[in-house]
Amino acid sequence: MANNSIAQSGNYIGVDLSAQTLRVALVAGDGQVLERRETVLDGEIVSRQTASIVQELRDHAASIEAIGIGIPGLVNPQTHEVVISSGMPSAEHGNLQVELSNLTGLPVALENDANAAAYGEYITGTGRGSRNMFYVTLGQGIGGAIILGGKLWLGASGFAGEFGHITIDPDGAECVCGNTGCLETVASAPNIVRRTHERLFRDGTSSLSKLSMNRDFTAADIAREARNGDDFALLMIERTGRYIGTAVASVINLLNIERIVLGGGVMEAGDLILDPIIREAGRRSFQPCFEATQIVAAGLGADAVAIGAAMLARDAEQI
Amino acid sequence: MANNSIAQSGNYIGVDLSAQTLRVALVAGDGQVLERRETVLDGEIVSRQTASIVQELRDHAASIEAIGIGIPGLVNPQTHEVVISSGMPSAEHGNLQVELSNLTGLPVALENDANAAAYGEYITGTGRGSRNMFYVTLGQGIGGAIILGGKLWLGASGFAGEFGHITIDPDGAECVCGNTGCLETVASAPNIVRRTHERLFRDGTSSLSKLSMNRDFTAADIAREARNGDDFALLMIERTGRYIGTAVASVINLLNIERIVLGGGVMEAGDLILDPIIREAGRRSFQPCFEATQIVAAGLGADAVAIGAAMLARDAEQI
Repeated sequence: MANNSIAQSGNYIGVDLSAQTLRVALVAGDGQVLERRETVLDGEIVSRQTASIVQELRDHAASIEAIGIGIPGLVNPQTHEVVISSGMPSAEHGNLQVELSNLTGLPVALENDANAAAYGEYITGTGRGSRNMFYVTLGQGIGGAIILGGKLWLGASGFAGEFGHITIDPDGAECVCGNTGCLETVASAPNIVRRTHERLFRDGTSSLSKLSMNRDFTAADIAREARNGDDFALLMIERTGRYIGTAVASVINLLNIERIVLGGGVMEAGDLILDPIIREAGRRSFQPCFEATQIVAAGLGADAVAIGAAMLARDAEQI
Repeated sequence: MANNSIAQSGNYIGVDLSAQTLRVALVAGDGQVLERRETVLDGEIVSRQTASIVQELRDHAASIEAIGIGIPGLVNPQTHEVVISSGMPSAEHGNLQVELSNLTGLPVALENDANAAAYGEYITGTGRGSRNMFYVTLGQGIGGAIILGGKLWLGASGFAGEFGHITIDPDGAECVCGNTGCLETVASAPNIVRRTHERLFRDGTSSLSKLSMNRDFTAADIAREARNGDDFALLMIERTGRYIGTAVASVINLLNIERIVLGGGVMEAGDLILDPIIREAGRRSFQPCFEATQIVAAGLGADAVAIGAAMLARDAEQI
């Protein structure tokens, strides 16, 4: 990493906080990642663990303007406190922003991780160039976020973009949310694995059968086997794409949005899943809406949350 | 009608244009309807027929500032031309705004009728007091419109709010749009009648059976019989409400919107349909989103489009 580019003014810290890990990126003002640190959460207070990494990066970079943190929870847009979280160290509820700001002396912006990733893709990923964008993350869970006129649109209570709980089959399986047939019940990574197991048990002959004798397979394994030409794995990926496409059609019909960016681990299947998503969305959405929408894979990979959080910190300053 | 209140300055004309009729309202600056004219389209050019009614109302009102027209079609937000219409006299495509403006010497605003009705409800109906609102009209067809931050949000190509084509049953009936299982295939007025006929044929004993011997019944008949205590009619209305509620849940999940206003002829069933809509939406939406949403019946009845069009003309002037 060239020290010259780091040592200029106007850098930001982006933090991607999850239940087990802390990913920290030093991000230039244009969204470029200059350095990365990743560490397992060690039980210490997250704000202190983060502050020490920030200090380490600060020793490299002449100037850090602000810190942005993407968290697996909801942030109250008024108080900036964490109000709901699924997988965040509970000790951090409510005070992460203040504590980290006190420890570092820097302004700290806190945002839901899907919202942060959406903003990252919008500023410097495959959302770039659009004004209105819907972002979907498909991984352990399914989330979404909306950008309208270049700004996150959070909704009445900060929950806008709950893509994973769109009903795609009124008589489908029960969801943790209480509804039946939510997209998440079939298309999150664990549910792709569950569906694949169920179907393998019934009628499958697949390289996954062999794999499952040794260890549990993952959604990534299914995607890899599909890429390697396993028909059964391909079928499961395509079906999943069709489910996602059905929900994407609702977004297209309701929002007539310019661009839809799909990210998260499930999208690592690449065109094998993107193509059926686009096909099903085309089949199920109102044609003039569909024709006005670009559906693309996300571009920032695992950096999306950190970059987006850093850019939110940058743009919060400018307001 | 008090001539005093009419003869003040700052009135607007709102026009609700459909395939067969022309409804024209003289609307005060605060959204109050001062006079109404309704006429059957007589084959003459719509702009001339409208202009002569405008002239008639102008003779009453000292000052008319502008005209707004709600049409059953899509208006290109850039060129203000009608680009798609379903049920508009074809002679009017593309030139209604210019012609009517030439004939009357007044500024003319043209807008899709669902968008106009949404704006009417937002300014002076049951959407009043919200900042972000979703409007649904349930009648011969099903439409929708979005208001964000007090303004119509039209989407990338003017189609935002296509509520009727949300998939609520992936294996459902074919829709004219090409998709299967759109809300419109079960919950528009003609489809409520179709479903009721089908079910009456199979197993119904209802006052509707008697009625159908004399003439075809309508969705309004079904609603009336439900209000009069007919169990079968009530069942059909409740089922319809559940279908609508499923689609409402998608709006709630995606937009986390403050208020949802439901209008159109189908809503004349009142609480008999509103209650199951709210119940099903509650069951199928993410709870924190649902709790932040008020779901209400529209308040302006048949005046919604004309009032909204007049208010759009008023507010277009202010920009």
